[in-house]
Amino acid sequence: MKLYQSYFSPNSRRVRMFLAEKGLEVPCVDVDIRSGQSHTPEYLKINPMGAVPALELDDDTAIAESVAICRYFEALQPEPRLFGSTPKEIAVIEMWQRRIELKWFVPLTQYWLHSAPMWAYNVKQLPELAEQNRDEISRFLTWLDGDMADREYIAGDRYSMADIIALTTMDHANSAHVGHPVSPELHNLARWHQRVSGRPSARA
Amino acid sequence: MKLYQSYFSPNSRRVRMFLAEKGLEVPCVDVDIRSGQSHTPEYLKINPMGAVPALELDDDTAIAESVAICRYFEALQPEPRLFGSTPKEIAVIEMWQRRIELKWFVPLTQYWLHSAPMWAYNVKQLPELAEQNRDEISRFLTWLDGDMADREYIAGDRYSMADIIALTTMDHANSAHVGHPVSPELHNLARWHQRVSGRPSARA
Repeated sequence: MKLYQSYFSPNSRRVRMFLAEKGLEVPCVDVDIRSGQSHTPEYLKINPMGAVPALELDDDTAIAESVAICRYFEALQPEPRLFGSTPKEIAVIEMWQRRIELKWFVPLTQYWLHSAPMWAYNVKQLPELAEQNRDEISRFLTWLDGDMADREYIAGDRYSMADIIALTTMDHANSAHVGHPVSPELHNLARWHQRVSGRPSARA
Repeated sequence: MKLYQSYFSPNSRRVRMFLAEKGLEVPCVDVDIRSGQSHTPEYLKINPMGAVPALELDDDTAIAESVAICRYFEALQPEPRLFGSTPKEIAVIEMWQRRIELKWFVPLTQYWLHSAPMWAYNVKQLPELAEQNRDEISRFLTWLDGDMADREYIAGDRYSMADIIALTTMDHANSAHVGHPVSPELHNLARWHQRVSGRPSARA
C-alpha cells in the first residue's frame, strides 16, 4: 500500500490527519504538485484526475479522493469511529461534511482560482466570480458560527471527519496564498479552531 | 419520520430512487420549491440551507443532504448494499460518487445558474463562467465514457449509490430547463443510461 500525497494539498492533509487519529502509518510518496508531477503520464495512470491524494493498494487498485481513502481506513480499522456509529450519527456527520465542502471548500477553491495571481496562467479569471464566492462563504460562515454556539465539534459533541474537513479548509483559507481568512470575530469558530488545532493530529 | 422532498429536485430523486432500491417506504411531504416553500421560516428550521431533501426523525433531528439521508437508510437496513460491503468496495464507490458530483453535478449547477433565464433574477449571471463549466463537463464526460468501456456500472460490476447520483445528474442535464444534454456519441454512457433507466427505481 502506498499513499501519494503532497504537503501543499489540503486534501492530502485530511488523510494524514485521519491516519494520525487512527494511529495508523502508511508508506507515503510525496508528489511535487507545484512542478506538475501530478500530471505526468505515470501519475495519471494512478489518478486520471491529476490530483492528490491517491492510495494504491497491493492489488494495484487506486483509490482517489481524500474522503474515499479515509472511508477505506475506517472500514479496515473502525475505531475510533470518525464517520459515526449509529445510523443517526453516520447521517449527521455526512450532512456536516457536505455542508463544509459544498458551502465552504468548493466556493473557496473557486475564489482562489479566480483571484490568486498563481492561477492566472491556467484559468481565465473572472473577478466577479471570486467576489460572488467570497460573499457566499461569508454568509455561510456567519451562520455556522451562530450554529456552533452550543456544541464543541462541527457535527456534535464528538470529533469526526467533519472536523478534519473543516480544519484543513480553514487553515487553507487562512494561508497567505489563498488569502481569504476567517474573521476572528466569529468567536465560536475561533474557539473550535483552537480546540481541534490542539490535537496531535493537527500537526500531521 | 418524514421526508421533505420535491419532484423538481434531482437531489430529492436520489433519495426516492435509493428508497425504491431498498424497498422502503417513507411518508413524504412535498415542498413547492418553485413558489419558495423551501425558504419559509418553518422550513428553514428543518434545513437552514433552504434546500430539499431533508429527513425529519421522530426525535426531531433533521438530516439534510441527499447522500446523508441515504446513508441513514443504508445503516438502518444494510441490504442491498448501495454504498459497498468490503473496505475496497466502500472506497471505490465513494470515489465515484465524488467524481460524479464534483466533476459533473457541481459544474452543471454552475452552468445552469449562470445560463438559464429562470435564474437571471437571483444570480448576477456570468456567461463566461457558464462556458468554462460546460467545457469542464465535456472533458470529464469524454474521459468517463472511455473509462466505462469495460464495466456495467459507474463504480464497477454492481449497481451502487454512484449510479443513482449519475443517473439523476444525467436526466437533470438532459432536461429542457437545464439544457446541457449528454452527447449521444458517448456510446458507453448511453448504454449505461439505458441499463440503469430500465430498473424500477428509475421511475421513483
